[in-house]
Amino acid sequence: MNKKYVAMIPARLGSQRIPKKNIRFLGGKPLIKYPIDFCLECDFFDSIWVNTESEELGKAVETEKVHFHRRPPELASNTATNRDFTYQFLKVHDCDYVVMVNPTSPLLRVETLKNFVAYVDENDFDVVFSVVSEKTECFCEGKPVNFSLKEKINSQFLTPVDRIAWAITAWKRDSFIKMQESGINPIFGGKIGLFSIPKDESCDLDTLEDWNIAEGMIVARNNKNTDNARYMDLG
Amino acid sequence: MNKKYVAMIPARLGSQRIPKKNIRFLGGKPLIKYPIDFCLECDFFDSIWVNTESEELGKAVETEKVHFHRRPPELASNTATNRDFTYQFLKVHDCDYVVMVNPTSPLLRVETLKNFVAYVDENDFDVVFSVVSEKTECFCEGKPVNFSLKEKINSQFLTPVDRIAWAITAWKRDSFIKMQESGINPIFGGKIGLFSIPKDESCDLDTLEDWNIAEGMIVARNNKNTDNARYMDLG
Repeated sequence: MNKKYVAMIPARLGSQRIPKKNIRFLGGKPLIKYPIDFCLECDFFDSIWVNTESEELGKAVETEKVHFHRRPPELASNTATNRDFTYQFLKVHDCDYVVMVNPTSPLLRVETLKNFVAYVDENDFDVVFSVVSEKTECFCEGKPVNFSLKEKINSQFLTPVDRIAWAITAWKRDSFIKMQESGINPIFGGKIGLFSIPKDESCDLDTLEDWNIAEGMIVARNNKNTDNARYMDLG
Repeated sequence: MNKKYVAMIPARLGSQRIPKKNIRFLGGKPLIKYPIDFCLECDFFDSIWVNTESEELGKAVETEKVHFHRRPPELASNTATNRDFTYQFLKVHDCDYVVMVNPTSPLLRVETLKNFVAYVDENDFDVVFSVVSEKTECFCEGKPVNFSLKEKINSQFLTPVDRIAWAITAWKRDSFIKMQESGINPIFGGKIGLFSIPKDESCDLDTLEDWNIAEGMIVARNNKNTDNARYMDLG
């Protein structure tokens, strides 16, 4: 790596739709352990920080290599924004880029995180988003986004629609601080890079239904190497 | 129901990326049984047809209530289109609407299929697509589709992007035939309706990875009622 990367794992204890989701067990370990383990295994980070308002959570995950960034309580409410807590974090930690690794994407693979950081390193973006790139016909406000109503083409030839996954996001520290201090929104500011990640790594844990899906997918991944294909008898 | 509905389940035996997927077992039954069971339970159909080129498959699924529509071999190649085999089907079967129920969406719920047909019935569309409506920032060719780069707004306030799920599609027979015979693409032709289905019902089985995900989701659904939440000890 040519530049200095700091990992930030945002983890409020007061989540709403799935209570205390960050400390809830998912397939063998608490959710918060997933991003921590990804960052440790990735090995590209100068330091790894769990950004939380909770003293208890911060202390519980703190180790020699995982640090506790105490988020000011006013930046931990339901209305506090990513923009504000990331700015507060960046003012305190020196780096070229902060890489936000989200606990709500436990299905990420370390390989993907490594490739993401390498992509940031090889380029010169102000922000890089992880996206799921899908070649499926989309509408927005009733109008076709990436296809023509005049013909049905094979999906492999469609223009993809790239959906932000919020699994991994990188911001250049200098640009972020400058924009924030000039009243410009730094979340989508400057030169934007999009990094495509596999669809099955993009799950987001908003609802209990999402949680159940993720749990099932973890079971399925563990079974993946057993090829137990069975077929209907056609007589 | 005010109108006459015929169900068409398209099921080639010669699938490519997942060989013979329609007769492969998924969580206890062959894939092809999923759409068949949905259509039987839905109870809104005048008749139910499995549209396949395979004599063996057609015969194996045929029952008193499930019929075999023999697809001409030239409409069963990898380059044959939905447009062509649906036209061939509609020329033979009288109805107001054909409802295509896709085997590649085994996670559909019967309730959703019923609501879909009811929606078709209450309206007067030429085609109705099942879509997954998502409030997530999307890009197409590097440009924002449903949000502004100037501000980051809470996702609940974003304009949704509606992605065609191809789980269930309804076409009005008369319009379809007329358009096809005038050289107009009937797949997206005329007055279009979009019917939103839950995200977890929209899986598509293109790759073996999708298959594993679906298998995991079925496991997860079966476990859904057991609340086994377990939490990390914060000391």
